[in-house]
Amino acid sequence: MVLYMAFRVIKVHMSPWTIIDQPRFSYRGLLIDTSRHYLPLPVIRKVIDSMTYAKLNVLHWHIVDTESFPLEIPSYPKLWNGAYSTSEQYSVADAAEIVSFAQKRGINVLAEIDVPGHALSWGTGYPSLWPSKDCQQPLDVSNEFTFKVIDGILSDFSKIFKFKFVHLGGDEVDTSCWTTTPHISKWLKKNGMNESQAYQYFVLRAQNLALSHGYEIVNWEETFNNFGNKLSRKTVVHNWLGGGVAQQVVASGLRCIVSNQDKWYLDHLDTTWQEFYANEPLTNITNLKQQKLVIGGEVCMWGERIDGSDIEQTIWPRAAAAAERLWTPYDELAKDPRQVTGRLAHFRCLLNQRGVAAAPLAGQGRAAPEANRGCFW
Amino acid sequence: MVLYMAFRVIKVHMSPWTIIDQPRFSYRGLLIDTSRHYLPLPVIRKVIDSMTYAKLNVLHWHIVDTESFPLEIPSYPKLWNGAYSTSEQYSVADAAEIVSFAQKRGINVLAEIDVPGHALSWGTGYPSLWPSKDCQQPLDVSNEFTFKVIDGILSDFSKIFKFKFVHLGGDEVDTSCWTTTPHISKWLKKNGMNESQAYQYFVLRAQNLALSHGYEIVNWEETFNNFGNKLSRKTVVHNWLGGGVAQQVVASGLRCIVSNQDKWYLDHLDTTWQEFYANEPLTNITNLKQQKLVIGGEVCMWGERIDGSDIEQTIWPRAAAAAERLWTPYDELAKDPRQVTGRLAHFRCLLNQRGVAAAPLAGQGRAAPEANRGCFW
Repeated sequence: MVLYMAFRVIKVHMSPWTIIDQPRFSYRGLLIDTSRHYLPLPVIRKVIDSMTYAKLNVLHWHIVDTESFPLEIPSYPKLWNGAYSTSEQYSVADAAEIVSFAQKRGINVLAEIDVPGHALSWGTGYPSLWPSKDCQQPLDVSNEFTFKVIDGILSDFSKIFKFKFVHLGGDEVDTSCWTTTPHISKWLKKNGMNESQAYQYFVLRAQNLALSHGYEIVNWEETFNNFGNKLSRKTVVHNWLGGGVAQQVVASGLRCIVSNQDKWYLDHLDTTWQEFYANEPLTNITNLKQQKLVIGGEVCMWGERIDGSDIEQTIWPRAAAAAERLWTPYDELAKDPRQVTGRLAHFRCLLNQRGVAAAPLAGQGRAAPEANRGCFW
Repeated sequence: MVLYMAFRVIKVHMSPWTIIDQPRFSYRGLLIDTSRHYLPLPVIRKVIDSMTYAKLNVLHWHIVDTESFPLEIPSYPKLWNGAYSTSEQYSVADAAEIVSFAQKRGINVLAEIDVPGHALSWGTGYPSLWPSKDCQQPLDVSNEFTFKVIDGILSDFSKIFKFKFVHLGGDEVDTSCWTTTPHISKWLKKNGMNESQAYQYFVLRAQNLALSHGYEIVNWEETFNNFGNKLSRKTVVHNWLGGGVAQQVVASGLRCIVSNQDKWYLDHLDTTWQEFYANEPLTNITNLKQQKLVIGGEVCMWGERIDGSDIEQTIWPRAAAAAERLWTPYDELAKDPRQVTGRLAHFRCLLNQRGVAAAPLAGQGRAAPEANRGCFW
């Protein structure tokens, strides 16, 4: 017997059935954010387990950000000082265990360092990464040490995170600290760069470091919007601001992941599962070759109001609505989300039966169940 | 070495330490309600696991109620027809497994059938238990079959639920169906009973059935408030309406469990952990012998807006505040809950680290965490 899965043919010996199925998109992601709130390992493992039920296959681990730096980096051990507490840290062994746990379930881990803008916490251990004590991000573009640290992180990453991509961030860069801090402003002048050119210089130099460690790159869409033609051809542009960017990215020949915040951000509690379901990554992309450059999509569980107490019911069941769009052939997708309601409600009950705290379909994300009723309608 | 625990002395061989500790109250309960919403087995197991962290030792399983009858009763198999669906049922094997799972963790399971008032779902399989098709509860007091069914349930219970107590409910009995249904009204007249006497007759007959199966009895406080001196001396009166009943119960020589809804009902999302902490079961009970009749207390997680998606964060951390009051000697309890804040916040983070979705302390029950902060302050 032959089992078709993820574009591979898998022989299952002696089984009395055949499954012919394959995903529409190869990249079906869920972002978790362990900087705004730390997520304990059992919580991450439960999230990974639950992803398998909806055939999501990439855990985008937004490990560090402005608020905290929970991961151990042996090359620069003081980065870990940026953790909220010593109880809110991941050792290298922890991270490797998560990667292995995910891998056993067919899930790749996409690790992210979001530079230069979202990296304030790096300076807790290494203050020279800040433009100054009073102006703490973006990372100091004028300091060679900045790129040494990025190189060290990516070197350590390459021993843990074996997925072919690394995510380098690049979004929401406010360069005002660069122009107002005298030594950086001086450096800009000396090198004949304006702020915008310095931003490009930073992102491209970080890209080269990632390439040198064997990674292909994911960057948030601002990098494309600002200097797309300069990006490495090994870049996947990660859409988040809204619809429409994917068609420009693939028209330029780069690959794209779709996560537009108005439809696929799970922290937007007022975005309904119907909107998650209806969000089509190939909108306005008709050319077959260009369609193939949209490698998939990702729902994003940003961590501002999420921790171990409420992450599961904020992810589920809405992530499952997006997951169906990412898996199912376009022509077999429901044109009217009402055709999905019963099936998705049943799936959320199955998740509950498996111990996953998926919330009801009705109401906002993570709403309480309606009074006094069965789960299976 | 000797370990003092729950009034027993346990020898731990070759251990290099001594623990001297024992609970203030022997009964430290948590109610779960599987009628208003079905709770899948993995969810119940997780609740039991989490109870051990706060040294709660009785799972009060409010199995059935008006809304659904999820438990298999071999003696009267059609009772199971009152489940929401065939996916929302507990087999005898399921229930036995829960009892065993709890027992291994030092937790007794107190099973409840709440009669005669909260039993509408029984009639789905056996409509003759209803006064009439149009007036469906309380259970028909005039029908011998009613007591046969209760006897059958308690007989089946005695094979599964080995705790010395069974809970027979007895609260919120609206007897109007008895007086408006001709055949019951006729029976009342024939037996010279008014509604109130019929209620007493029902509760006492159910008590005798429980005693015949070797159980001592728990009943909700209305039974005591209405005819306390008639109750079996083996009754424990379960307070729920408000403070003050415990002192009357123990003055009459009966035992009491405290669960007053204004302080210890977890479905009251606006009751803060500080109020849970401050609720003293021995209020106004100064006599030592009477104090001993308060066997403990229980926090109640009623199921109207709770299912597998939100039960953990509605129980925790508030249940832990009550648990400390139930365990710790009175003189060692904090007089000002502010002395508890740091410790309880730390405990909630520990629960998260163990994969229990305990909510933050601030805000209402199951509030989202504040933005961008560590868990351990």
